[in-house]
Amino acid sequence: MTDECISSIEYITKATLKMNAASSDVDCSGDRPDALGMGIGTGEETNANKTNGIEMNGKMSFDTMTVARMPTERNAIEYNMNHKKRGLALIFNHEYYDIPRLEPRTGTNVDCEKLKKSFKNLDFEVTAYKDCKLRDLFKHIDNAASQDHSDCDCIAVAILTHGEHGYLYAKDVMYKLESICHYFTAQECPTLAGKPKLFFIQACRGDSLDPGIKLQKTETDGETFSEMTYRIPVHADFLISYSTIPGFYSWRNTSDGSWYIQSLVEELNKNGIKYDMLSLLTFVSQRVAVGYESCVPSRPLMDQQKQIPCLTSMLTRILRFNEKPKTA
Amino acid sequence: MTDECISSIEYITKATLKMNAASSDVDCSGDRPDALGMGIGTGEETNANKTNGIEMNGKMSFDTMTVARMPTERNAIEYNMNHKKRGLALIFNHEYYDIPRLEPRTGTNVDCEKLKKSFKNLDFEVTAYKDCKLRDLFKHIDNAASQDHSDCDCIAVAILTHGEHGYLYAKDVMYKLESICHYFTAQECPTLAGKPKLFFIQACRGDSLDPGIKLQKTETDGETFSEMTYRIPVHADFLISYSTIPGFYSWRNTSDGSWYIQSLVEELNKNGIKYDMLSLLTFVSQRVAVGYESCVPSRPLMDQQKQIPCLTSMLTRILRFNEKPKTA
Repeated sequence: MTDECISSIEYITKATLKMNAASSDVDCSGDRPDALGMGIGTGEETNANKTNGIEMNGKMSFDTMTVARMPTERNAIEYNMNHKKRGLALIFNHEYYDIPRLEPRTGTNVDCEKLKKSFKNLDFEVTAYKDCKLRDLFKHIDNAASQDHSDCDCIAVAILTHGEHGYLYAKDVMYKLESICHYFTAQECPTLAGKPKLFFIQACRGDSLDPGIKLQKTETDGETFSEMTYRIPVHADFLISYSTIPGFYSWRNTSDGSWYIQSLVEELNKNGIKYDMLSLLTFVSQRVAVGYESCVPSRPLMDQQKQIPCLTSMLTRILRFNEKPKTA
Repeated sequence: MTDECISSIEYITKATLKMNAASSDVDCSGDRPDALGMGIGTGEETNANKTNGIEMNGKMSFDTMTVARMPTERNAIEYNMNHKKRGLALIFNHEYYDIPRLEPRTGTNVDCEKLKKSFKNLDFEVTAYKDCKLRDLFKHIDNAASQDHSDCDCIAVAILTHGEHGYLYAKDVMYKLESICHYFTAQECPTLAGKPKLFFIQACRGDSLDPGIKLQKTETDGETFSEMTYRIPVHADFLISYSTIPGFYSWRNTSDGSWYIQSLVEELNKNGIKYDMLSLLTFVSQRVAVGYESCVPSRPLMDQQKQIPCLTSMLTRILRFNEKPKTA
């Protein structure tokens, strides 16, 4: 990114192309933006209310942008899982390492075999790779990402290995998960665009330990002791819903508020007691991802950009807000 | 942690206390562990099959552990949302900063007002704090965490601010979200143990931009053009299911495989086509969090530890594996 943007840590938009369900007659290519009076608050402006008033009807071009086949209708609630095939499942199973301090991962073959069967039962085309060096691992990932996934529902990648603080270990050297995910972004792998890309990682992420907490029933109502206590990790039951993914801008409209909070509020109001929390936040992501793009025509690098929220869940049960009895 | 553990980047257990639904007559306090033949693979052992054969019946003590009230039955699918009150919702709304390079966040008051209403509609007791310095922010968090939440379903914290690469900005200085989450761990805030702790963050996480990708329908079947294309962020539709939270150990049993993969496989096999993916992974977390704890009595620091998986979702729709028509 250009330096000029850095001062604006959370980027603002004065006007935004809105393409919500409510205004689905508005074309995504911006031919008929419903937000006219196109004032833009740029990164340098201290007066964010300043407007440029640029007319945009039909003047935007998407020529330079990647185009992919649409796998799912725009406002569909569920992913389209009716393609001819389920898709590939790659398992990278690590038992032995070239790095002396890394012990063999005894038991991992049990994991791998069980996982293979589960994926097969769900109609994935499964391939397991054993003890890959990084170069081979990337080669297999590259091969998979280069295939035509047009007839597939999704892709799954499972990695069973040692890890620490953001890194995973191949047989010979460590790497970041992000470097693998990158192969499957919509730009790099257009036949998977709009389709689920699933990653399952069995690995340490540091050397902290969670001592747990014991939950105890206060009343004794004839239940056996075994049902009266259980222990949970002290870090369980957290949910963090972030407006954007790590490293990325989060957009805010100076008159309507931020894309994320607007979407969150709409979903809470509309579906707050209808859907469970994770489904609800999935719909928030859909609103932000499909319904908004930045409108900063005076700064081409910032213009027509998208945003995807990021949900991190350590919940252990379904969370649904019921109707509370009103106490008058 | 002790240095001796660092060599084992993904920690192994030779025997594990299993407390799954199937064996719910086994007490969580370890009085009747169903995994006898208690061999332990310690971090230093190169031969992980070596067993110590320690008998554990009733010899473990939980005296030093925190005990909290049980808000939800052990194997309940949903969180208990039938407490007297919904709980607190704290909003930290940031518009102006003492840090010169941080611009005012015009539009944030719109976000804040809308969010307040949404939380109130869901029966939260809402308090909004404007432009807090870090010291005040921590004071409000501390106050909230110190209250008795016994009668509450959950807690919600929303933060609307500038941010960059893992940090959020208070009025005067930046901080890590983790430092706030810490106040609400089951140890620090036992009256919220086993209850959902929800965080909603509107902030940048860096200065990268997502140019998006256009999805286009290939067939023309009489639909209007507006329905035939839409654009999505290139980073949408990813799901990363991690066996453990950042910074923490991930446990593996040398004969049965890792806690996480065992649980994942059980859920995929049992509920793979019954529940959507996020619900399914929530149940995986329940299995790992409630059903397992480490059994390394020879190394007290490693013994009786828990684990919570961590799910990161950029999905934009519900993901459910349907039954694929079998082609013979």
